Amino acid sequence: MRSLLPVYLEISSEPSINNKMNRITIFSPATVANISCGFDVLGCCLDGIGDYMTILKTAEKGVRITKITGMDLPLETEKNVAGVASLALLNDLKSPVDFGFEIEIVKKIKPGSGIGSSAASAAGAVFAINQLLSKPFNEFELIDFAREGERLACGFPITDNVAPALLGGFTLVKHDEPQKVLKLPVLKDLFVVILHPQIEIRTSEARAILPKQVDLELAVKQWANVGSFVHALHTQDVELFAASLQDYIVEPFRSKLIPGFDEVKQTALKQGALGSGISGSGPSIFSFCKGIQSAENVKDSIEKLYRSKNIPFQIYISKINPEGIQIVESN
Amino acid sequence: MRSLLPVYLEISSEPSINNKMNRITIFSPATVANISCGFDVLGCCLDGIGDYMTILKTAEKGVRITKITGMDLPLETEKNVAGVASLALLNDLKSPVDFGFEIEIVKKIKPGSGIGSSAASAAGAVFAINQLLSKPFNEFELIDFAREGERLACGFPITDNVAPALLGGFTLVKHDEPQKVLKLPVLKDLFVVILHPQIEIRTSEARAILPKQVDLELAVKQWANVGSFVHALHTQDVELFAASLQDYIVEPFRSKLIPGFDEVKQTALKQGALGSGISGSGPSIFSFCKGIQSAENVKDSIEKLYRSKNIPFQIYISKINPEGIQIVESN
Repeated sequence: MRSLLPVYLEISSEPSINNKMNRITIFSPATVANISCGFDVLGCCLDGIGDYMTILKTAEKGVRITKITGMDLPLETEKNVAGVASLALLNDLKSPVDFGFEIEIVKKIKPGSGIGSSAASAAGAVFAINQLLSKPFNEFELIDFAREGERLACGFPITDNVAPALLGGFTLVKHDEPQKVLKLPVLKDLFVVILHPQIEIRTSEARAILPKQVDLELAVKQWANVGSFVHALHTQDVELFAASLQDYIVEPFRSKLIPGFDEVKQTALKQGALGSGISGSGPSIFSFCKGIQSAENVKDSIEKLYRSKNIPFQIYISKINPEGIQIVESN
Repeated sequence: MRSLLPVYLEISSEPSINNKMNRITIFSPATVANISCGFDVLGCCLDGIGDYMTILKTAEKGVRITKITGMDLPLETEKNVAGVASLALLNDLKSPVDFGFEIEIVKKIKPGSGIGSSAASAAGAVFAINQLLSKPFNEFELIDFAREGERLACGFPITDNVAPALLGGFTLVKHDEPQKVLKLPVLKDLFVVILHPQIEIRTSEARAILPKQVDLELAVKQWANVGSFVHALHTQDVELFAASLQDYIVEPFRSKLIPGFDEVKQTALKQGALGSGISGSGPSIFSFCKGIQSAENVKDSIEKLYRSKNIPFQIYISKINPEGIQIVESN
């Protein structure tokens, strides 16, 4: 990332660039959306799994993606989620700036993994640019810009991953007009085990498999659990949190797309996980655990099980990240 | 109610009755179930609207309903919700008692009003008997006994009204097996205006009008609001509380059964109510208000509007009752 430094030095003497920060490196985390009962509503932010992005001011106006390492993704601004989200932010500035931005991405989150790869890029870009502009926008406004990246990535301006990436912790998306994002408390000592079977599930397929209508009786059970999930976070009630991690609506359909889902879930629960489910639209499977030792046990058991499947996979343990995107370096 | 006193005096010298309390008079409050987004899940307890019940120990075993004033309801124990709930409690005692109970009810909540008339009787009876037995059961166990009264009243052991009657404040019923009831925080300075149009809506009709299936898209909006409702109570966020009081699923169907529902709701909202909806399965309409002045304004406006309808009605203002059933007198 040091390759960008000379450009920064060159432009730092430009009188038109009057903000103190000219360059920023951030960690933009992976996220879990569609947490069990909370399809399209509940998400959380991970720690230790995420991309690094360096963004700097340039004398040349506009936004350029100069380098992406780790994954094969388009560099064209209009075709890149980070680019599109950045443009949405810049278009919303009251006074246009007379300088531009270069973005370099070290991509660690694989697209299509179900842990918010595009959201990390989109949210990271707008977070960083907002910092470089001395924060004209608040976190909730940034969510709106980042959603434009999601619109490019999956056809809908989905909030579920960009919200926890930007706010950290657990988030709830309220879908009335205007949409509203709430930041929920974090359960202490909570860890997540993420199994990423390296298969491709198309978002379109994951959407198409869902019924347009659901039983009212099941919907009632589901919304009771969303309420009790939120109550459990506020009251630090681990048992209730675990009991709320039920999905009567979506998991029965989407789990069929993930080889060994039921076995993974049963293994995790048997080893003491508080609950398991599909992260985003899959194929990643999350398991919440109380304490690192429990998380290690769950990880080991899932790993052992999944080795027999002849499907390449990655498995991680992460804490819940209470802050969201973090600044690694700025100057 | 003093008519019961001689019986008490007579039996107080019986050596078999070894608990100190022999007679209790309670206030058993009305309740609102199916609060907007929380169909079958969210309820709250009212104050100032409710029944009075006096229960005393008798030498004769069993449960007898000796007097009901205010409403025409069956006195036979097995046909009365208070009787049935009391028997459920007594049948669950580890050691049967060698005395009995007489129940006298001053019924103020009209059956079929949608504000938990049967629940008040059932919950009140088990609360009072539990007190007379020196509290062998906790509130959550009492809910289970009271539900048996609801089974008699409406065919299902519904929890939605007996839970807030016994726990007070706001409650959430989690419908997994085993069912669990949560007590939620109360929003400060919250009042409820209850309009009771004196028409009859059969519970069976109110149930039959609901679709068996609902749009997934609407269900998602609904469960987001259940989550945000709970969050609003925990964070004392009045604005969010108001914004969460949306019902995409049930109200569009059931409101058709209540003459002038839409007008009442619009009037209440225009006058500053935080939200309005159908209490239970109707016909009562609740309106939450912040502060007594707002509640008075809302009440006056609804009253004025409803006078033009040529339908007899009652209208009350109530605080949220944080405690549930209250002991008026005991000895």
